[in-house]
Amino acid sequence: MQKFNILVGQSGGPTAVINCSLYGVIKEALESEQIDKVYGMKNGIEGFLRGEIMDLGEAFSDPDRLELLKQTPAAYLGSCRYKLPPIDETEIYEEMFDKFRQYGIGAFLYIGGNDSMDTAGKLSAYARRHGSDICFLGVPKTIDNDLVGTDHTPGYGSAAKYIASTVRDISIDAGVYDLKSVTIVEIMGRHAGWLCAASALARNEHVHNPMLIYLPESPFHMDRFVENVREALEKESNVVVCVSEGIRDEDHNLICEYKGKADVDGFGHKKLTGAAKLLEAAVMANIPGVKCRSIELSLLQRSSSVLASGRDREEAEQVGRFAVKSAVNGESHQMVCMERAEGESYRIDYVLKEVADIGNKEKMIPSWWITKEGTDVTEEFLDYVRPLIEGECEMRFRDGMPEYVYRD
Amino acid sequence: MQKFNILVGQSGGPTAVINCSLYGVIKEALESEQIDKVYGMKNGIEGFLRGEIMDLGEAFSDPDRLELLKQTPAAYLGSCRYKLPPIDETEIYEEMFDKFRQYGIGAFLYIGGNDSMDTAGKLSAYARRHGSDICFLGVPKTIDNDLVGTDHTPGYGSAAKYIASTVRDISIDAGVYDLKSVTIVEIMGRHAGWLCAASALARNEHVHNPMLIYLPESPFHMDRFVENVREALEKESNVVVCVSEGIRDEDHNLICEYKGKADVDGFGHKKLTGAAKLLEAAVMANIPGVKCRSIELSLLQRSSSVLASGRDREEAEQVGRFAVKSAVNGESHQMVCMERAEGESYRIDYVLKEVADIGNKEKMIPSWWITKEGTDVTEEFLDYVRPLIEGECEMRFRDGMPEYVYRD
Repeated sequence: MQKFNILVGQSGGPTAVINCSLYGVIKEALESEQIDKVYGMKNGIEGFLRGEIMDLGEAFSDPDRLELLKQTPAAYLGSCRYKLPPIDETEIYEEMFDKFRQYGIGAFLYIGGNDSMDTAGKLSAYARRHGSDICFLGVPKTIDNDLVGTDHTPGYGSAAKYIASTVRDISIDAGVYDLKSVTIVEIMGRHAGWLCAASALARNEHVHNPMLIYLPESPFHMDRFVENVREALEKESNVVVCVSEGIRDEDHNLICEYKGKADVDGFGHKKLTGAAKLLEAAVMANIPGVKCRSIELSLLQRSSSVLASGRDREEAEQVGRFAVKSAVNGESHQMVCMERAEGESYRIDYVLKEVADIGNKEKMIPSWWITKEGTDVTEEFLDYVRPLIEGECEMRFRDGMPEYVYRD
Repeated sequence: MQKFNILVGQSGGPTAVINCSLYGVIKEALESEQIDKVYGMKNGIEGFLRGEIMDLGEAFSDPDRLELLKQTPAAYLGSCRYKLPPIDETEIYEEMFDKFRQYGIGAFLYIGGNDSMDTAGKLSAYARRHGSDICFLGVPKTIDNDLVGTDHTPGYGSAAKYIASTVRDISIDAGVYDLKSVTIVEIMGRHAGWLCAASALARNEHVHNPMLIYLPESPFHMDRFVENVREALEKESNVVVCVSEGIRDEDHNLICEYKGKADVDGFGHKKLTGAAKLLEAAVMANIPGVKCRSIELSLLQRSSSVLASGRDREEAEQVGRFAVKSAVNGESHQMVCMERAEGESYRIDYVLKEVADIGNKEKMIPSWWITKEGTDVTEEFLDYVRPLIEGECEMRFRDGMPEYVYRD
């Protein structure tokens, strides 16, 4: 078998472990007899189209540096949000396939979420139509956990662990004073509530928060919310509420867009206010005598690697390695998926599924994993998510700070 | 020498290491021949006045449980913000001193910041006036680092490490896309800018952010800020700005209060907006074509212990131990202070200073540690703060989450 080169890119939003998938790709490729060079595209296909390519074997010739890649958050190669046109618009595809030939690319691996799988799917479809023998494979990644076809996505476990741990810390902090308080925590998730749902893991026999969890999957009513908070305050003086940024009312209007023109600031801009701020205002207006504050976890829930899940890191590496092995076996048009084996103990099998069936779809939390009232998740969801946050990662520090690798 | 009991309390806002000082107090007291029982007041003197007292020797009879106290964030005993009246209003003092006698208290140790030192100072003054031989000692604690008389305060180093690491992570995350962006990070510090200044530690040879740092010690001008950001964007496409929540204009008006009535929301409440949101609006209004977002670190900068500084944890324990030793030596009316020894290598000496000289004062960043433009700190400040974030802490986890101890 003739040796070939592979090309790998990262796309979409960062996660704590997307670089572990890159590590898996590089490591497996360097160990493979069939693969010559591993090229990385800078800033995904957007950079690739500008010819921004690097030799990853060279960049990581120092094995120690390669190990540090695993604890480096965000996307080492840089990322993009670039949507390819339909494959009938052949010009850009011809340009890309020319470049593939120029670099001797036998396999194209794209690490990303829904949009990235759309890219991988289109390139794969173009290759099919035009009889190219280049392999196109998707490597799943997203903190949102909303990719169909896979039990979960690498990146989700670490974000879930960060969120659960942070919500527990917030609950303990908010409980130090002997007074009634409501703390509203806004968590990422525009369409699917997987991240916010993971906040339920903050609870233990001493921490009863979050007392309430609101997800985009259940319609949100402001009046009912205020009533829920009032009831929660009768049980606990320290109430933490977790809310997805994407909560919607019965008509699918985003709650965070309620303020609209009413919230225009001195500079004439609107929409500076998230859902949590609005809920905070509702509590303050309707439940007097209670300390209320809101906190947006914002980028922190995906940008920190100090609370990365050991299992997530391991699985992120494995999906990368599996993609390279699949390319060596001549597989194409697929995304690496994780299947959870039945039974008591947790085990994942790595399989391939048609990438065209995955892009542009969104997996929501099934309704039977949300309680009837729409303010909590069920025990079945907790059984699903618990194994994903297990295991801790050794971190190397320098001068008191986590040590990372950087692209030159 | 007759054995005596000690009473310890925690007061004011939580830190990542306030429980390490409690650990130091308990450990040293249990090891001392002179001390019989170690009582803890729940929720500071507020709870104590209601008779809420616990036997800490009993609560921590399991040494393993005592070790876990060190990695538990917030305040194990609970906290309060309770201001004692002047000592001429004797009623409340008589009540307290009665309770001290009832529990055989020979020493009263209060772990806290400025307000807590006001409490320790008043009790100490009352004891002096009325010839009580109970020792009153202050144990410093605050993330704000604004206590006079001490090189720095336990709690600051861990918050500084969290902030520096988080700002670096934010900068890396914000830089993954190939576009111009401004990210404004709001950091605690109503009066003193120590925490925000520590964000400068985020920089290294690859990370140039924060490009701009605004502190309450330097007057803030909105127009000049916009100009600074414009200039920064000429040097870097990914600009992170760090800003203290308490930045003020030349007339000492808080920037976060600028919006005033203009920001009244649908519920009739104002002041939902912090300084960072206002700066974000200013950038969006004045610098078109740039992605801009703001992030408040909020409680997270003090409520997480996973990035606690090893040195901070050790020093927090030592101030607690030193307070107990001082009580055994019959010292009173003092706060434990840290003096940094001259010379190349970092060394701290623990000394006592009159607590009455410490409460209700605030230590600001000296002007010579802030650059002339008021948008950065100097190398001398960095030399001061670098040692404080050094050293990592082993954390014990259970089920994927940091393990803590809780009060029953």
